[in-house]
Amino acid sequence: MLTHTVQDGPLLDRFRELWGQIAPIGRDAHSGGYLRYALTEPELRLREWFRAQADERSMPVTEDGNGNLFAWWGDPEAGDAILTGSHFDSVPHGGAYDGPLGIVSAFLAVDELRAAGVPPVRPLAVAAFVEEEGARFGVPCLGSRLLTGALDVERAAGLRDTGGVSFAEALGDRPAGARPELLGRFAAFVELHVEQGRALVERDAPVAVASAIWPHGRWRFDFTGEGNHAGTTRMADRRDPMLTYAFTVLAANKEARLRGAHATVGRVAVEPNATNAIPSRVTGWLDARAAEPDTLAGMVEAVHGKAAERARRDGTQVTLTEESATPLVAFDGGLADRLAGLLDAPVLPTGAGHDAGVLAALVPTAMLFVRNPTGVSHSPAESATDADCATGVTALARALEELLR
Amino acid sequence: MLTHTVQDGPLLDRFRELWGQIAPIGRDAHSGGYLRYALTEPELRLREWFRAQADERSMPVTEDGNGNLFAWWGDPEAGDAILTGSHFDSVPHGGAYDGPLGIVSAFLAVDELRAAGVPPVRPLAVAAFVEEEGARFGVPCLGSRLLTGALDVERAAGLRDTGGVSFAEALGDRPAGARPELLGRFAAFVELHVEQGRALVERDAPVAVASAIWPHGRWRFDFTGEGNHAGTTRMADRRDPMLTYAFTVLAANKEARLRGAHATVGRVAVEPNATNAIPSRVTGWLDARAAEPDTLAGMVEAVHGKAAERARRDGTQVTLTEESATPLVAFDGGLADRLAGLLDAPVLPTGAGHDAGVLAALVPTAMLFVRNPTGVSHSPAESATDADCATGVTALARALEELLR
Repeated sequence: MLTHTVQDGPLLDRFRELWGQIAPIGRDAHSGGYLRYALTEPELRLREWFRAQADERSMPVTEDGNGNLFAWWGDPEAGDAILTGSHFDSVPHGGAYDGPLGIVSAFLAVDELRAAGVPPVRPLAVAAFVEEEGARFGVPCLGSRLLTGALDVERAAGLRDTGGVSFAEALGDRPAGARPELLGRFAAFVELHVEQGRALVERDAPVAVASAIWPHGRWRFDFTGEGNHAGTTRMADRRDPMLTYAFTVLAANKEARLRGAHATVGRVAVEPNATNAIPSRVTGWLDARAAEPDTLAGMVEAVHGKAAERARRDGTQVTLTEESATPLVAFDGGLADRLAGLLDAPVLPTGAGHDAGVLAALVPTAMLFVRNPTGVSHSPAESATDADCATGVTALARALEELLR
Repeated sequence: MLTHTVQDGPLLDRFRELWGQIAPIGRDAHSGGYLRYALTEPELRLREWFRAQADERSMPVTEDGNGNLFAWWGDPEAGDAILTGSHFDSVPHGGAYDGPLGIVSAFLAVDELRAAGVPPVRPLAVAAFVEEEGARFGVPCLGSRLLTGALDVERAAGLRDTGGVSFAEALGDRPAGARPELLGRFAAFVELHVEQGRALVERDAPVAVASAIWPHGRWRFDFTGEGNHAGTTRMADRRDPMLTYAFTVLAANKEARLRGAHATVGRVAVEPNATNAIPSRVTGWLDARAAEPDTLAGMVEAVHGKAAERARRDGTQVTLTEESATPLVAFDGGLADRLAGLLDAPVLPTGAGHDAGVLAALVPTAMLFVRNPTGVSHSPAESATDADCATGVTALARALEELLR
């Protein structure tokens, strides 16, 4: 393997130092997970940390009006630049690595390149994208979608968090919108990310290169019935939407298994959500993903069909709303092969969306994954060894060096 | 029917006047339902209204240290008193009648008795019990259970609302605890309440007398699994507690139907409750009720057994906690028959718990139900006609007159 596996030495120490600086920020003492929602206090502290790291390296920071940050080594206006980075925000009680690892690794890779005397013949930028998880405003990759124009500015502005604050209010006076002239300055983007499965454990490899992101999306199922007293309403007189919801959860699981696809209902909202009241409304969000677009569409249609059939039995109604849909992303094949050869790394698809998947539509893009011993992600159990993280830094530095030529 | 059905006249006007005074308090403009949680601002306003109504009638108000209010016609210390009243608090987005109708009717019944020249040979008290629904602190009939000693003071003090405020903090410096000497002063309690089903509609009667309250309780099911990424975790690798929850919801419904009992899962909490995360924990609350204690116990045991079996298939764990259990309450049979004869009213059991069910253990107790055209309760659709409410006042006044003799 060309990628040098780092077991000790100054890079490992530097990684531990930077990682230690951000580890306490937004950490929930009870769960051990992170509450780093976009543009809330913990994420704002991480953004300050980003600016301090850039300052230490004499990298001026620019913003794109959408909340995304860019720290520049070289002239931001020169063009043909190489972009790397990731995001700070987390899902509720998420892991430490999903997002921040790509930013910490980017700054350390810059240090590696400079220490190795790699000449800055092109500019290099480290990015921190905003609201990648969609955990605050409901739309994942919000910052990168705005930057590329994949998401309408008006729609984004009106998104609200659970406290009623709109994305426009959270952005303040930033002038949100697509920035084609900024994107046109990038020749390539490489995002390093913790792996979110166990493929690298099974292959006994510390780093992989991504081939594709499965098509995926979020569908909201609204089940409505008749709110009533739990104690006094005869079973035969009920129109209980919780029953239709429960049936739909099990149907989604079955349909995904039948197709080798993924389906999850991990979020639910109930009105009034009281122990002694039959709900008037239950809303469930279906996260669905598959290797092929037709498989995905067929699965969602099948789940909807079963939900509607059950709703007729329960005397309830169901409506389906597509909240987001991301088509198949095939990363730049030539770039992936080049990096896989350079790093002697396996090439893998993933079921997870990333800012890299959004930028891939407009910029040649690659992703590197760092091994995750638990395979768990979006949970406090998400993990990576310090040695694998440092190895990831060397892999990213080699990839950037190759692209900077 | 001995109970005079009120279609117009000054009593109807007086009912509408008092009802109009409290109708806006705590009403949610969006749902049309009420958010009158115990000892929060809307309920505190209703308690002020209670004191003002008592003042108008020269009825001194006493508290029992548990948050329950008593307005007295006659000497509070004399003993052999007759008690009536109900509660102000609501479930989330509850109806207007559940609780407040019994208090408004009590004051109007006092007016009727005085206007008719009924001599106050015994004291009469109008009560407003606190936290009957358990919507804020999780334990229904909290105020009456403390008063009777059915609930431990320390346990009640430590109950917390979703904002982290304890019941002890909400009570302030009130000296909570059982008040046997106060209860000993009551010879009888009559609670008037809106019906929470359609039995009176089917019988074409405006008022009924209660025979019994079904045994009932709340059981918390905690389902735990492994939080993980919804996009990248293979279906076969999951330990998803939402599946076990969904199966249990359907099992509870089936087991209740098999037994002619009632089972409802109307409340759920999910961690982390994010669209793209397999939950680590799902908690569901089962409200279960049946005519016989053995039927109830058998049903809960069957639901738990099915949940545990499914948990083994899902790789999850389930734990069951009994949060509250109320045994069968048979109201004083002689008293019920006496009032049913007096009012020519049908006698009905109910599946709903009430403060009357708690007091019945220590004080001869009766309940009157007022017809509800929709049969719906714990919902904005709960209803009663003004004419039936006024008829309820005359029925309550007749019952109290009978008991005051």
